[in-house]
Amino acid sequence: MIKDRIILGIDPGTIVMGYGILIIEENKPRLETMGILQLNKFDDHYLRLRKIFERVTGLIDQYNPDELAIETPFFGKNVQSMLKLGRAQGVAMSAALNRDIPIFEYAPLKIKMSITGNGNASKEQVAGMLQRFLHIPDDHMLPQLDATDGLAAALCHYFQTNNPVLEKKYTGWKDFIAKHPGKVKK
Amino acid sequence: MIKDRIILGIDPGTIVMGYGILIIEENKPRLETMGILQLNKFDDHYLRLRKIFERVTGLIDQYNPDELAIETPFFGKNVQSMLKLGRAQGVAMSAALNRDIPIFEYAPLKIKMSITGNGNASKEQVAGMLQRFLHIPDDHMLPQLDATDGLAAALCHYFQTNNPVLEKKYTGWKDFIAKHPGKVKK
Repeated sequence: MIKDRIILGIDPGTIVMGYGILIIEENKPRLETMGILQLNKFDDHYLRLRKIFERVTGLIDQYNPDELAIETPFFGKNVQSMLKLGRAQGVAMSAALNRDIPIFEYAPLKIKMSITGNGNASKEQVAGMLQRFLHIPDDHMLPQLDATDGLAAALCHYFQTNNPVLEKKYTGWKDFIAKHPGKVKK
Repeated sequence: MIKDRIILGIDPGTIVMGYGILIIEENKPRLETMGILQLNKFDDHYLRLRKIFERVTGLIDQYNPDELAIETPFFGKNVQSMLKLGRAQGVAMSAALNRDIPIFEYAPLKIKMSITGNGNASKEQVAGMLQRFLHIPDDHMLPQLDATDGLAAALCHYFQTNNPVLEKKYTGWKDFIAKHPGKVKK
């Protein structure tokens, strides 16, 4: 089991980017910081992308995370919004790649399932579970649920990689084989 | 009229990235270099993104371009391919933003129209026009037309910003008003 890891969780969007830093000590995760980057105050598309790059780079330089966990929806309303979302994701990923930090993607449903046990949980339910699980005082919670969305990606990644007992779900047959190589007859 | 500019043109994709460097001296563009980055040899999605970031950063550091012209399709087959394309674009853009280089986007149709006068021109026709216009010797032309696609974005940007005589097309009413403020009655 890996110990003393730092996970940066990000929920990148074109309106708001949420983020959270999770520190794992003696196999216990605790919140280091979380926040949002409000992007809709900038009219210029490139300025928004630049702000994402700068903030992610700044978080990496400040907290030295070992991994980036990123919430990435794979389906969207239309090709236009997906192109924009892809750009925001690509920019956030660039900041990590530029600092040699491995990237792990999680779909929104996977994150909700991992945190609350319910893939259709509301943002409020996810925030509530995070608050209880990480013992976050009320006055540390942000009114913007995008911040907890970023943090949720980090905690989901911790569950996936560090605590198999808490995560028994399989994403499919390939996943089952990978986790139980002995059970498959060749 | 701006002189002595260096334009980096990029056609980013998830299979191949094409690029070209155009140097403008005494208002005459000439080819400095062009090439491709073959990405399908890398299985890992993040390694591809990383290679894009590194190559664009390398080109910027080597040639010191003043502007990045980038070919960006706005429509795609499906949301999946657009998300991937958006990521490739975002990564290439990050490299420019990280070096304070302004970005200019051109749709494929716009580039073809600008280079050949025909928005439906083939890649071969675009390459042929580039070769004639920039006096590129046969042995400098690459068999991969993705390289000329990147160069075409750079030349299109030059036409758009430096040589209004060569570019009389309007993209619409807003564009017409912007270019002819005196002709519009308030």
